[in-house]
Amino acid sequence: MPEPIDFYFDFSSPYGYLAAACIDEMAERHGRSVRWRPILLGAIFQETGGRPLLGIPMKGDYARHDLARSARLIGVPFALPESFPFMSVAACRAYYWMLNQDAGQAVALAKALYREAFGKGQDIDSPEAVARVCIAEGLDGDAIRAALRDPGIKQQLRTEVAAAIAKGVFGSPLIIVDGEVFWGHDRLDQVALWLERGGW
Amino acid sequence: MPEPIDFYFDFSSPYGYLAAACIDEMAERHGRSVRWRPILLGAIFQETGGRPLLGIPMKGDYARHDLARSARLIGVPFALPESFPFMSVAACRAYYWMLNQDAGQAVALAKALYREAFGKGQDIDSPEAVARVCIAEGLDGDAIRAALRDPGIKQQLRTEVAAAIAKGVFGSPLIIVDGEVFWGHDRLDQVALWLERGGW
Repeated sequence: MPEPIDFYFDFSSPYGYLAAACIDEMAERHGRSVRWRPILLGAIFQETGGRPLLGIPMKGDYARHDLARSARLIGVPFALPESFPFMSVAACRAYYWMLNQDAGQAVALAKALYREAFGKGQDIDSPEAVARVCIAEGLDGDAIRAALRDPGIKQQLRTEVAAAIAKGVFGSPLIIVDGEVFWGHDRLDQVALWLERGGW
Repeated sequence: MPEPIDFYFDFSSPYGYLAAACIDEMAERHGRSVRWRPILLGAIFQETGGRPLLGIPMKGDYARHDLARSARLIGVPFALPESFPFMSVAACRAYYWMLNQDAGQAVALAKALYREAFGKGQDIDSPEAVARVCIAEGLDGDAIRAALRDPGIKQQLRTEVAAAIAKGVFGSPLIIVDGEVFWGHDRLDQVALWLERGGW
C-alpha cells in the first residue's frame, strides 16, 4: 500500500480551497489516499516574514482575478468572505476534534468549512460560525462548542502546526508526495505527473 | 491575424528562464507570435514591496528545489549564477538595442543571455559579461559596448519599465493574452488552455 499524500492548508487560504476541491480525486486516480492537515499560516509567516497575498499591491488584485478564473476552470463556485484574511483557529480545532473520532467525517467537515468560506463567501472565523457549519453537517452543537474550548484540542493544534513547520511547510496549499514538496494550487499538475511517473 | 502574446520577464528571474524555454513554441502551436519584454523587477518591487524569492526563509529553499525539478521536467539545463539575484540592466539594454534593429535577433539574444545565466550558471550582470554573450552571438563588440552606455537606450528601458508597471506587471514571468494576465511559470498550463479555448 503506497504512503498517503500529505495535504497542508490553511482554512483562510483561497488557493487551499481550490486544491481541496481536486486533491482527493487526483490521489484516488493513482491509488493514493490523502492526509488532510489544516495549519495556521499566521504562525508560519512569523518564521518566514510572509504576508497575506491579497493585501499586496498589484499582486493582490491579480490574485483575486486568478482565483475566480481558476475556480471557473475547475467548475467550483468562488466568493471571498467579508472578513478576509481571517483567523482559522476555530475551524482547525473543529477539524482535529473530528479527526480524533473519524478521519472521513473530518475531511467532509473540512470541505464543508471551505465551501462555506470560499464557495458561499460566508465568515467562518468565529467559534459560533464554525459550530453552525458543524451542526449543518449533522454534528452535535454542544459537543463541538465544548471541543473548541478544550485545552487538549488547543494543544493538539499547536503540536500539528509545530510539526508542520519542522517539516518545512511554509505556505498553503502545500502537498508532500513521497517526501517531495509541491507548493501552490498551480503545482497540482506536477503533483499529478509525479504520482503518474513516480518522479522524474 | 490574432494579437501577439506579451511576455514580460526579468533576466535575473529563474522562473522567467523556464518560461522563456517554452513560450515561443506554445504560442506557435496556436498561431500566435510573442512580444518579448524584459523588465527590471527591482523597480517594480519598490512599488509592491516584493522581495527576491530565493532570499525568503523556507520558501527560498523550496524554490531552489522546485526550479531544478521543473527544469528537469521540461528538459533544460539549470544552474544558478554565482551572483544571484543580480542586476539585469545591461542585459535589458542589450535586448532593446537589438530590438530596434531586428526583433528575431533580439529574441535569440535574450535566449542566449538566459542560457548563459541559468543554463550555464554564468554571471551576466556586468556590461562586459553581456558584451561577451553578444559577441558569441555574432554581434559587434564595439557597437554593443557603446549601446550599453547610450542615453537613448537607457531612456528606452526606463520607458518600457514604466509602461509595464502602468499595465499592472508586478512579477516575472508575466504573460498577457488578449488582455488576460497570467503570472508565474506554473500558470503556463492555463495560458495554453486559454489559447486553445479562447477563454472560459
